[in-house]
This record gives sequence, C-alpha cells and structure tokens, in this order.
Amino acid sequence: MEKIAEVGLLYDFYGGLLTERQKEVLRLYHEENLSLGEIARDLSISRQGVHDTLKKAEASLYDYEVKLELVKKFRDTGDRIRQIETALDEIISRGEDPRLKAELRRIRQEVDDLIENY
Amino acid sequence: MEKIAEVGLLYDFYGGLLTERQKEVLRLYHEENLSLGEIARDLSISRQGVHDTLKKAEASLYDYEVKLELVKKFRDTGDRIRQIETALDEIISRGEDPRLKAELRRIRQEVDDLIENY
Repeated sequence: MEKIAEVGLLYDFYGGLLTERQKEVLRLYHEENLSLGEIARDLSISRQGVHDTLKKAEASLYDYEVKLELVKKFRDTGDRIRQIETALDEIISRGEDPRLKAELRRIRQEVDDLIENY
Repeated sequence: MEKIAEVGLLYDFYGGLLTERQKEVLRLYHEENLSLGEIARDLSISRQGVHDTLKKAEASLYDYEVKLELVKKFRDTGDRIRQIETALDEIISRGEDPRLKAELRRIRQEVDDLIENY
C-alpha cells in the first residue's frame, strides 16, 4: 500500500485526535496535493514549520495505530467481507430460481455496503 | 446499556492509549470487581488516588469516543450485520435444496464470525 493511502486511512480513524493545525496541514498536503512551499505561503508559516507539523502529525497517526491497531482490524474485516461476497456470488451465478437470486443479490448488496461504512 | 459494559467497550477500542496505571485500576475495578478500598490496599495508594485515577481514565475513554466515534460505528455495523443474518436465516428456513442450505449456513456462520471479530 502506498504511503499516501496509508496516511489517509490512518487519518480516517485517528484524525479526530490531531490538532486543528495538524489536520489542516495534512489535508492540504495529502488531499489537495499542495507543496510544502505552497502550504507555507497559504498559512503564513515557514516551510520548515509545515514540514515539522506534517511529520509530527504523521508520526502521531502511526503511533495511534501501533497502540490501537484499529486500521489493521478494519483491513482484516474487509478481507473477510470480501470472502463472504465471493461465496454469495458463486451461489447467485449458479442459481436458477429468480426469486432466490433476487434475494441473494439484495443480501450481497447489503454486505457490499458494509465495506463502505464499517 | 449499563455503564460497566460501556466502559468495557470503550476500553476495548481505546485502552491502548491509557497509562499502565490507568489500565490496571480500570481492570481491577471493572473486570475483577474489586472495591476502591481493595484496589487502594493492593496498589498501596490512597482510596482517593484510586478514585481519581479511575475517573480520569474513564473520562479519557469517553473523550476519545467523542472525538473518534469508533464505538458508535462499531455498533452501527453490528446492527447491519444482524440484519444480514436475519435475511439469510429467512432464506435458509425456507429452502429445500440441502446443498444450497448447507452453503448458506456456512456463509451465515462467516457473517456471524464477523460480529465476534470486527
């Protein structure tokens, strides 16, 4: 997994524990893809200050994951949900009873929605 | 939901962010059901100290939940998983094809395992 995705996922879980300034710098850098220089200009702080804020925020996110492992659990659950979907797909692709297929497709959709929201 | 279960669930998510002393006092109080006086004696600190540690630890756990809402998300996911189980159960109870029933039961079990581990 590339680093940006990793930070984004960590942020989804632990971002609420960062300071407003840390959140802002992370967002500008990782979501809006501004350079350190551009962020420095926008926030009227030094480029070094942006760099330090970014590194400290990222280190905090990694540290929370080391202590809580909630992203790891999230990924494990995702793998399990995908296995369930594969098993349902196999039954759906084989089935001939249209009512049953429709019901299983609905359940399959609900399982799929779990991935988006858990 | 009674308070002890609530603290237990919060602890499962955020306990890793507490100090060793906080974790120890929470465990003795909520899991081993010792009184404040008993904990004070065991740890050689004052009863007031135990009380303060306990309150501060609980407040931290609630504060993490206010900021991150991961227990709330966990409960919402649990509700959704149970709905999926109910839908599967209905199909299983109606079905006559023994192979299909066996497969759906296996999927149902995998969904059930999600609740234990997500």
